[in-house]
Amino acid sequence: MIVGTMAFDAIETPFGKVDKIIGGSATYAAWAASHFVSPIKQVSIIGGDFPAEEIELLKAKDVWFDGVEQLPNDKSFFWSGKYHLDMNNRDTLITDLNVLAKFNPKVPENYQDCDYVMLANLMPSLQFSVIKQLRERPAFLIMDTMNFWMETAMEGLLEVLPHVDLLLVNESEARQLSGEVSLVRAAEKIRAMGPRYIIIKKGEHGALLFYENQLFAAPALPIADVIDPTGAGDSFGGGFIGYLARTGDLSYSNMKAAVVIGSAMASFCVEQFGPQALKTIQPLDIADRVSQFLELMSVDIEVSLFI
Amino acid sequence: MIVGTMAFDAIETPFGKVDKIIGGSATYAAWAASHFVSPIKQVSIIGGDFPAEEIELLKAKDVWFDGVEQLPNDKSFFWSGKYHLDMNNRDTLITDLNVLAKFNPKVPENYQDCDYVMLANLMPSLQFSVIKQLRERPAFLIMDTMNFWMETAMEGLLEVLPHVDLLLVNESEARQLSGEVSLVRAAEKIRAMGPRYIIIKKGEHGALLFYENQLFAAPALPIADVIDPTGAGDSFGGGFIGYLARTGDLSYSNMKAAVVIGSAMASFCVEQFGPQALKTIQPLDIADRVSQFLELMSVDIEVSLFI
Repeated sequence: MIVGTMAFDAIETPFGKVDKIIGGSATYAAWAASHFVSPIKQVSIIGGDFPAEEIELLKAKDVWFDGVEQLPNDKSFFWSGKYHLDMNNRDTLITDLNVLAKFNPKVPENYQDCDYVMLANLMPSLQFSVIKQLRERPAFLIMDTMNFWMETAMEGLLEVLPHVDLLLVNESEARQLSGEVSLVRAAEKIRAMGPRYIIIKKGEHGALLFYENQLFAAPALPIADVIDPTGAGDSFGGGFIGYLARTGDLSYSNMKAAVVIGSAMASFCVEQFGPQALKTIQPLDIADRVSQFLELMSVDIEVSLFI
Repeated sequence: MIVGTMAFDAIETPFGKVDKIIGGSATYAAWAASHFVSPIKQVSIIGGDFPAEEIELLKAKDVWFDGVEQLPNDKSFFWSGKYHLDMNNRDTLITDLNVLAKFNPKVPENYQDCDYVMLANLMPSLQFSVIKQLRERPAFLIMDTMNFWMETAMEGLLEVLPHVDLLLVNESEARQLSGEVSLVRAAEKIRAMGPRYIIIKKGEHGALLFYENQLFAAPALPIADVIDPTGAGDSFGGGFIGYLARTGDLSYSNMKAAVVIGSAMASFCVEQFGPQALKTIQPLDIADRVSQFLELMSVDIEVSLFI
């Protein structure tokens, strides 16, 4: 199950501009997860303007829409942003909530059996309402959040955190949530707020996974031409939870593998505008990409040499 | 052989302040390399104020001073800087060249047999003069540089680059030297300027090694309390070249190992002010730290699962 936004985006990067393409956290996450698991049970809200062909493409990948409310007379959520030359910073130009202002996620009866749940970035009270609707605790529940909620809904955020297994945040969010500059100390403090696992996403610098006294660092794949970083974090999350669902293995060792899978899906995402690349990749592309990551990280050292 | 500065530093970080401690690129590099190889043949210049006991400590680790000129009536090079809260940025407060203004490095006769050479950050013409003094090309020659030389001595820099095997730069230096934002494209362009290997140092985000069409990413060890980042890059370089010299193995596979060793030495360096930590670590500490790096990077994925 994936809970989040399905939206339109207008994006400007140093490499080009798109006026109105499909976006939204749950859209990216569903496309990324669809390569590993089916069905995907989507919870979102869209307007009458959401393209029928985009819905059909997702349904063809066994993405369920029972939990996606469509308001025919309203517009879909719209976000517009502009990236700077280094692609690590962006300015939000427009945020039109539209249907999102009316979002009150409902978990359909036929979604109650979901073992793997991703709560993409949303108002914490909505994330919590989804958790409260679940009659049984899922095997693994991950959530994303953002600075904005730390500034406007910190209390609500602190209320959800004890109910999730893993929190996905970027570096500045980890620092803001914890009040710590050091990411090691930040992860310690956030773990004390509830989640047993913390993933700190560092964009082009990869991702860190914190669990108990263990620590894993996955690099990002250095890419010659990053076209559009939008949705990379959501693609990471979708790939991560999709791989966990596919393997059904919640060991720490498999969590590390899932971080690399998530990183691979993010690396596809940034190569084209919108979720385009995630729609067209094939299993062999994923296998090749994951092999590139393993190559990127592989090293052999005889430690006894020093002693 | 290590060529670079031996100096005094005054450093202020969010964690404290030191007024006048031993620093300089060749000092850090020699301490880092001393754990892997001996002798180390140092080329530098110091004033009458350079502490005799620091020289003795280095000599005890078989660091040779035949190539270190001491001007008894002059002062040693002095640098003072202040780090910001995130430790990734620093302001230079004072740069007193002192003896450095008179530096004209001379390679002593008994240094001519050096197979592994590190030219730490210096004016490119001085780096080149060292290379020209070598009667035989060393087995492996690495050099560091900085933005300042790209702004004031680009022509000289471009003259040295074809003569080195490996260039060490940080992210912003790689971008400035190449005029490319993408690090992949930056490395391509820099390789066309001469060096077969490029290492891009990313501080707390690790390091990238570029060689032909291969790419290796080493993480930095996330550290709870970074006390002083000064000298981390020089410690990296010293550990890297020291390990190559120790193993005598110039395969790409061993270069990757050397990147991890360099990263390990940098991780010790930042845990205390100045080169203090590099002076006190023991072989077992290094073995433990390298094991931590291998743990941090280790992942196992069955790629055939996707096909």
